[in-house]
Amino acid sequence: MAARKPIIGVMGPGRTEVHTEPVDKHVELALELGKQIAAHGWLLLTGGRNIGVMDAACRGAKSAGGTTIGILPGPDAMDISDAVDIPILTGLGSARDNINALSASVLVAVGMGPGTAAEVALALKARKPVVLLATNPEAEKFFSGLAPGLLHVAGDVEGAVTHVKGLLAAQQGGAAGGAEQQQQ
Amino acid sequence: MAARKPIIGVMGPGRTEVHTEPVDKHVELALELGKQIAAHGWLLLTGGRNIGVMDAACRGAKSAGGTTIGILPGPDAMDISDAVDIPILTGLGSARDNINALSASVLVAVGMGPGTAAEVALALKARKPVVLLATNPEAEKFFSGLAPGLLHVAGDVEGAVTHVKGLLAAQQGGAAGGAEQQQQ
Amino acid sequence: MAARKPIIGVMGPGRTEVHTEPVDKHVELALELGKQIAAHGWLLLTGGRNIGVMDAACRGAKSAGGTTIGILPGPDAMDISDAVDIPILTGLGSARDNINALSASVLVAVGMGPGTAAEVALALKARKPVVLLATNPEAEKFFSGLAPGLLHVAGDVEGAVTHVKGLLAAQQGGAAGGAEQQQQ
Amino acid sequence: MAARKPIIGVMGPGRTEVHTEPVDKHVELALELGKQIAAHGWLLLTGGRNIGVMDAACRGAKSAGGTTIGILPGPDAMDISDAVDIPILTGLGSARDNINALSASVLVAVGMGPGTAAEVALALKARKPVVLLATNPEAEKFFSGLAPGLLHVAGDVEGAVTHVKGLLAAQQGGAAGGAEQQQQ
Repeated sequence: MAARKPIIGVMGPGRTEVHTEPVDKHVELALELGKQIAAHGWLLLTGGRNIGVMDAACRGAKSAGGTTIGILPGPDAMDISDAVDIPILTGLGSARDNINALSASVLVAVGMGPGTAAEVALALKARKPVVLLATNPEAEKFFSGLAPGLLHVAGDVEGAVTHVKGLLAAQQGGAAGGAEQQQQ
Repeated sequence: MAARKPIIGVMGPGRTEVHTEPVDKHVELALELGKQIAAHGWLLLTGGRNIGVMDAACRGAKSAGGTTIGILPGPDAMDISDAVDIPILTGLGSARDNINALSASVLVAVGMGPGTAAEVALALKARKPVVLLATNPEAEKFFSGLAPGLLHVAGDVEGAVTHVKGLLAAQQGGAAGGAEQQQQ
Repeated sequence: MAARKPIIGVMGPGRTEVHTEPVDKHVELALELGKQIAAHGWLLLTGGRNIGVMDAACRGAKSAGGTTIGILPGPDAMDISDAVDIPILTGLGSARDNINALSASVLVAVGMGPGTAAEVALALKARKPVVLLATNPEAEKFFSGLAPGLLHVAGDVEGAVTHVKGLLAAQQGGAAGGAEQQQQ
Repeated sequence: MAARKPIIGVMGPGRTEVHTEPVDKHVELALELGKQIAAHGWLLLTGGRNIGVMDAACRGAKSAGGTTIGILPGPDAMDISDAVDIPILTGLGSARDNINALSASVLVAVGMGPGTAAEVALALKARKPVVLLATNPEAEKFFSGLAPGLLHVAGDVEGAVTHVKGLLAAQQGGAAGGAEQQQQ
């Protein structure tokens, strides 16, 4: 059976409406990151709502022919982004943040807020690699100190994508070569 | 934007290994049901593990070119069916049963066990329609009594698919015509 | 350290308002069952809302000096029963039903509805004993068939309490004597 | 009906064994904080495991006659602290961190790790006040920036308890006086 497509999580603040002018910096970055994720043949996973970074990343991915998965906090179809292909309705509220952390092979945080911080922390707790894109120096310092080997910082979308590529390659190498790692 | 593909959930006991001979009746039904779901252009959602009805339904869907979503109970990639395209790792144990109930537009139960019963009950609690396929008279009587309008019984795969088609049509009609229903 | 007090779960439909006349049969039973649970020195665990069986059981337990735990579906203090001492706000919606099933040593279902059915099924899935009190013949037949050794039926509160006592004694005997059971 | 006792959450790294010498600074602080919480008549809520800060805080509270609630990640009784009176078995893994954030009126973080960071972030996301006790300057700077009005820093147990007292008083004043706040 052919290998599954890797799932890349993109997290970020939800409050900024994507259609509001002037277009927010994080929304622009998320749009471009979504495009790049689709262009590389990866699946995009976000929080799935119709606002902010999650919406923008999904729109970007769809514009480049990608497939988008949304892990929604609510129990119904109220606030799903139009650009989500596969809405998973969890009804878990913020507890769904841990599903994002577990289901993505690599997490990219675009911008920073309490929800994004929770997702980054849960990913590090689950020993998942995280890339911070355009967050802030306080976040970079704090999370780097928490989990030095897992935390990566990118200054632009290209840098983030380079990190993701490297991390996926390392995971596949590890999966192929490192049977003993499974036993820990 | 084009409409999303409907998500059909297929639930059933996990214990029967799909490769064990003689091939179990529920596994055969799930294989055929998965094929039909893919052939109709619907997405298949299951519990995602590599055993029993969930595995068989995914194999059937893949054999017909479909896309399969697995809502896994565990936090890691331990027991994912090879036939799952999109594994969602919830780490929630049986609490993930409610995600299956919420995320599917229609749920089909193939066979019956405690986990399947939980998923059927949670779907009915969330006011989702359920089709029972090859369960047993006790299950049919019990669940029919719990939620008369939501519970449908099918004797074979063709009957189950006919129910699903009708229920999806009713939901789309309701979504298009029935704004006041949203306000309940 | 002294042994912990056993936690007894009482589940049942939430729709019947406890203050509505004529007083509903299940609410009366839940009130009396709550009293008995407190009188035996057990902790009471319910779904914690201010309606139906869960509210009545908590009121009964409080009237007899007991301690009550409520596992609430919502994220905030909106609809907590006044008779809950310890509200656990899960924000999980119906996924919290599985916490009830896991946290109680024995579950008693008083009456039957979709939510109660989910809790009974999840308890049986987790191999927890369940007592059905004043449900209906369809429920008794269905759940007995699902998990013969775990399902008990009581016709009145006294019978339910007798079952709970016996089941707790068996669990403690098993915990003390049965180390090999832990290894399954 | 008499008011419920406030629930104070104490979070912190789990890795340090409480019985290991030399006794860790965070474990000592958690022991003393647990004592103070019990002495003030508050309920203590922790992650409930038999290690690190959560275990120490529970032992402290029990030594002062308090009541302790543990919100366990696992589905069974495997690693519960002996000092937990009321174990809630969630089976949710790290998704249970959000229950801690929602159920406590105030959260105190003693030390810092990925799990503690997730709990602090989820509390801030839910608009709950948080006190950081003996974490580190990076954590203080980062979380203060995320939610300025909700984040408080204490240098010792006495300072943390003073913060908790003030925050509880403000919540009760707010609950009594501020109906319009509910509507946000």
